[in-house]
Amino acid sequence: MDLEKYLREKKALIDSALKQYLAPQSSLFKAMAYSTVDGGKRLRPILAIAAFEALNGKDENRIMPVACGMEMIHVYSLIHDDLPAMDNDDYRRGKLTNHKVYGEAMAILAGDGLYALAFELFSHGDNHAGAQLRVVREMAQVTGPRGIVWGQALDITEEKDFDPKTLRTIHVNKTAKFFSAAVKCGAIMAQAPDLRIEELGRAGLYLGMLFQITDDILDVTGDFGSVGKATHKDEPKNKLTYPRVYGLEGARFRARRYRDLVLQSAGQFEFLAALTEHIVRRNF
Amino acid sequence: MDLEKYLREKKALIDSALKQYLAPQSSLFKAMAYSTVDGGKRLRPILAIAAFEALNGKDENRIMPVACGMEMIHVYSLIHDDLPAMDNDDYRRGKLTNHKVYGEAMAILAGDGLYALAFELFSHGDNHAGAQLRVVREMAQVTGPRGIVWGQALDITEEKDFDPKTLRTIHVNKTAKFFSAAVKCGAIMAQAPDLRIEELGRAGLYLGMLFQITDDILDVTGDFGSVGKATHKDEPKNKLTYPRVYGLEGARFRARRYRDLVLQSAGQFEFLAALTEHIVRRNF
Repeated sequence: MDLEKYLREKKALIDSALKQYLAPQSSLFKAMAYSTVDGGKRLRPILAIAAFEALNGKDENRIMPVACGMEMIHVYSLIHDDLPAMDNDDYRRGKLTNHKVYGEAMAILAGDGLYALAFELFSHGDNHAGAQLRVVREMAQVTGPRGIVWGQALDITEEKDFDPKTLRTIHVNKTAKFFSAAVKCGAIMAQAPDLRIEELGRAGLYLGMLFQITDDILDVTGDFGSVGKATHKDEPKNKLTYPRVYGLEGARFRARRYRDLVLQSAGQFEFLAALTEHIVRRNF
Repeated sequence: MDLEKYLREKKALIDSALKQYLAPQSSLFKAMAYSTVDGGKRLRPILAIAAFEALNGKDENRIMPVACGMEMIHVYSLIHDDLPAMDNDDYRRGKLTNHKVYGEAMAILAGDGLYALAFELFSHGDNHAGAQLRVVREMAQVTGPRGIVWGQALDITEEKDFDPKTLRTIHVNKTAKFFSAAVKCGAIMAQAPDLRIEELGRAGLYLGMLFQITDDILDVTGDFGSVGKATHKDEPKNKLTYPRVYGLEGARFRARRYRDLVLQSAGQFEFLAALTEHIVRRNF
């Protein structure tokens, strides 16, 4: 498959849908749109759409609100992570962070608003209540206090152990579970059999780990121009990363291992295999 | 009916369920539990349970997770509202605010975690997927960027107009819509007919307005001991309140009008009428 083309096309669809969902109807929506519209690879929503299509899901209107809700949740987590009380970052996706433009209070609310809007989208209409409710449950779990929020809480803790176990827990919760859920929710909306949903969810989890490890590596080897945010920022901030725990070569070795795991479990899901190679190429 | 007894009994049930849902499994859960367990009148969840029972809803296990999710969302909004970047409050429900105890970063995450956990609870199990999905939709709408988050965004805006329209918009979005949704979701889980759900939702909206206006009045006339948080705090903070716009007597007059509106639309829903009188007695 022509992965670059596929990513480009889906990203365009998602960008345009997000623009509609976030049409400026208030100062709050403007702040929410600022960090969401433009920029971003849209990997999570594309994963959901790709899984939906691979499992013969029909009708893009079924998956698009779910996919866009995922991107909103991703952006919400970035806005809150960037806050002065958290990582205190000035740049994201190549432009000023939300709180730098709208102030801290509005940035907190923009994040809160995006998270709520995602669940509006997941529950929109009710032609497929069973599948939609499952998506809600899945997304609430992986983005909640046993998922993203827990990963972030651990990540910002000053006194955490710099050991492989804590590192893995942070990456699984902050990134991998969300990737897994994106794939699973695509499959759920396509009404795939449970076994297939779980299998793809596992592949998504490995892909998430691969993605996060390469992100850690890029923070060491990349520069602002290629990454769109401050690099080398993990070091002074006491961040737990793969290169920090295993060294650069050790991190690359582990990334390759996750690549193999994705490829083994991706089955006939061609997109996942192609994306995996793409991520690996990104920085090897 | 014996309202005091009813409120006491339901509060005890909710308190105990919340304690279970928030059993300390991590430092994050500890921070989440701190602001949720103990304290609080539990008005929103009690409204949901009362509506459920009034409409012949059976099986408390159907409504309890929904009711507790509502309280978690309420607490999440309080934690975020209290943050230094927002209202910068030190006390809430008679004790130190979340960020005063756990720090700003953890308080933001505790709020985020509670909000996500609420949606886990709304979508728990799937014996009633249609009703549950409707609850998710309702709750996402009233707590999102066209509900609570918008009310709060307006509330903290320095340059807002001090006019009746802005005041009403803030109170409707910050408080009344949530009260309305609490009653509606109780009715939805009891599988009441749509007409009845809408009718009760209207009564809940009026009740929310009544409640918020009396809260405004209490801020002027009450003291810390009776209210459990700093009083007279709206004035220096440029807060838009009913006494501020209409004077104390004007605010009381409007509260009484909302009382009449609730009583007219409460129909045979005895609890709502009793609660209305209770709220009015609270400070007249």
